Amino acid sequence: MKKLTEYNFPEDLKNMSEKEMELLAIQIREFLIDKVSATGGHVASNLGVVELSIALHKVFDSPKDKIIWDVGHQAYVHKILTGRAEGFDTLRQFGGMSGFPKAKESEHDIFDTGHSTTSLSLACGMAAARDIKGEKHEVVAVIGDGSLTGGMAYEAMDNLGFKKNKVIIILNDNGMSISKNVGGISKYLGAIRTSQGYRSAKKFVKDKVDTTKAGHGIAQGLASFKNDLKYTMMNNPGVFFENLGMTYLGPIDGHDIKQIITALNKARSLDEPVVIHCLTKKGKGYSIAEKYPRKFHGIGPFDPVTGEVLKKSSNPSFSKVMGKHLIEMARKDENIVAITAAMGEATGLMDISLEIPERYFDVGIAEEHGVTFAAGLAKAGLKPMVCIYSSFLQRAYDQLMEDVCLQNLHVVFLLDRAGVVGADGETHHGIFDLSYLNTMPNMTVLAPKNGEELEKMMDWAAEQDGPVAIRYPRGEAVCDNEVMSTKYDAPGSFRVFSGKEIDIWTLGKMYDTAHEVRKILESKGYRCGLVDVNMAKPLDVSVYDTNARYVISIEDNIVTGGFGDILCKALMDRNCKVIRYGWPDTFVTHGTFDQLADMYGLSPEKIADSILKHIASDKKRGGLFG
Amino acid sequence: MKKLTEYNFPEDLKNMSEKEMELLAIQIREFLIDKVSATGGHVASNLGVVELSIALHKVFDSPKDKIIWDVGHQAYVHKILTGRAEGFDTLRQFGGMSGFPKAKESEHDIFDTGHSTTSLSLACGMAAARDIKGEKHEVVAVIGDGSLTGGMAYEAMDNLGFKKNKVIIILNDNGMSISKNVGGISKYLGAIRTSQGYRSAKKFVKDKVDTTKAGHGIAQGLASFKNDLKYTMMNNPGVFFENLGMTYLGPIDGHDIKQIITALNKARSLDEPVVIHCLTKKGKGYSIAEKYPRKFHGIGPFDPVTGEVLKKSSNPSFSKVMGKHLIEMARKDENIVAITAAMGEATGLMDISLEIPERYFDVGIAEEHGVTFAAGLAKAGLKPMVCIYSSFLQRAYDQLMEDVCLQNLHVVFLLDRAGVVGADGETHHGIFDLSYLNTMPNMTVLAPKNGEELEKMMDWAAEQDGPVAIRYPRGEAVCDNEVMSTKYDAPGSFRVFSGKEIDIWTLGKMYDTAHEVRKILESKGYRCGLVDVNMAKPLDVSVYDTNARYVISIEDNIVTGGFGDILCKALMDRNCKVIRYGWPDTFVTHGTFDQLADMYGLSPEKIADSILKHIASDKKRGGLFG
Repeated sequence: MKKLTEYNFPEDLKNMSEKEMELLAIQIREFLIDKVSATGGHVASNLGVVELSIALHKVFDSPKDKIIWDVGHQAYVHKILTGRAEGFDTLRQFGGMSGFPKAKESEHDIFDTGHSTTSLSLACGMAAARDIKGEKHEVVAVIGDGSLTGGMAYEAMDNLGFKKNKVIIILNDNGMSISKNVGGISKYLGAIRTSQGYRSAKKFVKDKVDTTKAGHGIAQGLASFKNDLKYTMMNNPGVFFENLGMTYLGPIDGHDIKQIITALNKARSLDEPVVIHCLTKKGKGYSIAEKYPRKFHGIGPFDPVTGEVLKKSSNPSFSKVMGKHLIEMARKDENIVAITAAMGEATGLMDISLEIPERYFDVGIAEEHGVTFAAGLAKAGLKPMVCIYSSFLQRAYDQLMEDVCLQNLHVVFLLDRAGVVGADGETHHGIFDLSYLNTMPNMTVLAPKNGEELEKMMDWAAEQDGPVAIRYPRGEAVCDNEVMSTKYDAPGSFRVFSGKEIDIWTLGKMYDTAHEVRKILESKGYRCGLVDVNMAKPLDVSVYDTNARYVISIEDNIVTGGFGDILCKALMDRNCKVIRYGWPDTFVTHGTFDQLADMYGLSPEKIADSILKHIASDKKRGGLFG
Repeated sequence: MKKLTEYNFPEDLKNMSEKEMELLAIQIREFLIDKVSATGGHVASNLGVVELSIALHKVFDSPKDKIIWDVGHQAYVHKILTGRAEGFDTLRQFGGMSGFPKAKESEHDIFDTGHSTTSLSLACGMAAARDIKGEKHEVVAVIGDGSLTGGMAYEAMDNLGFKKNKVIIILNDNGMSISKNVGGISKYLGAIRTSQGYRSAKKFVKDKVDTTKAGHGIAQGLASFKNDLKYTMMNNPGVFFENLGMTYLGPIDGHDIKQIITALNKARSLDEPVVIHCLTKKGKGYSIAEKYPRKFHGIGPFDPVTGEVLKKSSNPSFSKVMGKHLIEMARKDENIVAITAAMGEATGLMDISLEIPERYFDVGIAEEHGVTFAAGLAKAGLKPMVCIYSSFLQRAYDQLMEDVCLQNLHVVFLLDRAGVVGADGETHHGIFDLSYLNTMPNMTVLAPKNGEELEKMMDWAAEQDGPVAIRYPRGEAVCDNEVMSTKYDAPGSFRVFSGKEIDIWTLGKMYDTAHEVRKILESKGYRCGLVDVNMAKPLDVSVYDTNARYVISIEDNIVTGGFGDILCKALMDRNCKVIRYGWPDTFVTHGTFDQLADMYGLSPEKIADSILKHIASDKKRGGLFG
């Protein structure tokens, strides 16, 4: 049997028989488990779309036909089937293949997706353009049921149902996003999924995907369903989608290649937007992943036999510290409530979700709603703690501004994964939050450097009046170079070392880097101060050292609009030059923090070197400020 | 008969008979036309909710019961009924009553709404908090059918249908947002609206709001409806909402107080989330506004008899210039397409919508989808021109970042209403865009000072590769103080006057202010340069005058992260002090540009005065930079 790297995909798929494709599916699953167990990555969702991906590339002619993957972490099989099996040795490694679709990697990757619920809008646009230009090809969007909890999916279907440009939407329904799905729409899909209709799905396909007949069949199984779903599905399980103007096909068994191909061909023959409701199982074919789909959603290197994660860190992560402290706070203060957007486990909220479920809200992949919902909770006197990844909170920029900051409501934001996140790359780095939070009136912005500070900040934030954001990075909640434990009652700016020529101001966990930079500069003979900042806005500059000619800012955010800019403005009237270090005005690729810091000049060595060059250049010109 | 200002509302409403309330409705309509014709404001939508507002305050006990107005521009009647009739003499005037709900104005205004589609999420939050705290009161959200095109409404209903906290949603369906509604959901609502069922709505209410019977009645009239709606409404017109877990009541006649009260009482008696589908007419009772609801959506002072707008400007607005030039470009270049989010007329797109409808896309109040849709169009080789107000584009921050900038796609953004907008106030000022656009890698940011520049920029932008944003203010597309017409092939920074001690850098239409500041400083004996900047990112500082010790930036954006910050960073290594003028870190109230500029220190006099004080203070300390 050929190795996956030896095929000429997708062409070789075209002549494969059904039997050969089924064997290919097995081969791909083995390959995925073998490769991803070594590199880490998104396992469960990719195992769930093996047959779907094969059928898509069998029926459609990529890249002429456009296949768009929502969120994108489930595009591994698509990568194999478009000639990138070799890339899996370097999957998600610095300089290696990305774990997400990347246009620069392959012409088969139409968009660099990473955030949820964009595929239908992207497909809408491509289909409208195709029809304006009179071109002939298919536009296919693959979207999970989890992503359907996002409002953009509804906005896109609303438009598509009205404009009627032909798009084939594959609803990849595995009954969960990363956590268990929530929301009315999930309940609705669940009702279809668990109905008799599903069991008779094979018959349905034999009926040439005739929705009327299938619907009738399904209706038999629905007699016992809840009252509010009763009318809905008596005639048609896809009535929700048809209300919006789509044609609905399904549900079909997403692990039966023949069924999928039949449905895709049916959809191809229609001249209107179609939803194919495809039922799949997360982790399919790998029993441990089927059993623990959440654990195997995104995972580090693991033992393929036992499923055990190989490298376990000895220190708790910021997420763990946050979750542990939050449940303690919630036990004492019954006004504390937690909100997450489909990231309960990842942000550390499992304890509160289990112990106090009535004060835990998973709103689905709906950050916009989540933030405004929190505004409502706060207005009514509760203390909402909103736990969302930094890069995903970007979705709620306007809601932060209008619904929280404008009303000056006491909502606490716990921004996990602030700074660079590593292997997930461009779309997941949380390096813009300081910039956008700084521009929001009434907002207070904090950044802890270790778990102890995070806990103190949470306590402090819970007692404030207006909005407070606490941003903290992915990974261990410890600071290697900590020379003193911050003993503060309230967050602010704390002088650790006094300086002379150079004063380094560092925010949050970049303290480690700053400490190393200081060591290098001291070794070169410069007396170098250090200020540990954990509140970026409002920024306290009362500890400014009037001797320092050079003030250095170091942050894990883009330089534009970040902590350094705030510092620079605050010191405008002082006789000093502020040199800012942070991520540049570009999208930062995937890699470890150290690899990326070295690449972009944020390693201690490179920062120190840059500072010394600045000083040398100023000396050459006659010294700083003449 | 009592004057509206003489009532003790809402208490006095409680004892009114149906007849008295009907008379009150007439009195309110006369009052609204009389008052708003003098001040300008939102006329048509408020005339459409007179009976609804009366019924709400009759049935519910505000502020104990919470009434939340989506968008908020339709809360005038609510203001009258909560004791603020007197405020209408100063409606939308500087220092006077806001045209939107404001918590600081009245305890009956729960939230400061202004952007669309937030009410359901806010209501969700308040209802969840109420249930956690064991309180007893109603939470009512009034949302227009236009706002239902926004994804947040769906996200909120999805959550509400799952969690089942009791919220009463009034769907105020007037068949249009500001423009005619678009989308599958509008079609769906339209089908209910125009069906037999609506005509038999009075019977329906007599049947004690029994949805089953009403649904059956409606079904009779639906026999001829399109295939994709056929199944939907055979059994229940509200099936769409019921799919999401809501209980649906309606449709009812939103101008029949008795019907509304009956429905509200029915909803009150239920213990689950309810949607009351309430059919209203925009402009109701004022024939000119009924005929031209778009014109009377938001309007300046007008003649109440003829409906003619009183003050007409002699110069075309930026919006007009944009629309006129866009249709010319689209005629020549068949790849140009226009996208708007329910603001076709206001942004100047009527010409293209009528002449080339196939290249005009109104996506509804769905900025997120609109931007990502444009990314799809661009990827497929078209040239999308996205026309959205600056403050509303905030909704699509993440889509701008992830779907446009990350992919470096050629999408042109025409940001109307950048800078302060006047009477609409806090929620509508477009004073954050420079800050958020500046942080986006690959983005180019332009700002014209007059119509001629806007046209040149549009031509230039259409020929670039990556994303370009052109931000321009509300109002006339002329610059009063223009001493030279910019003769450039490409946007950049242009020196108008050479300086000595002081160099003023001004962006876009703030040129007028800068010119006046220069005059004042020159009159005080300072030789003062002037640089006209129309490209903020990337910023060209090659025309920097090495003599200038003081560089002044003037912009119509908040200072944080704006043009001045970019300038400051670009001049970091020069021997100068950059003093930045823009809006402060606060939410700016409503008023004219001149009133607000004076209040916040952005008038020519105040800027000049501030600069002189800086210089004097530095002199006192021994001069700038020693």
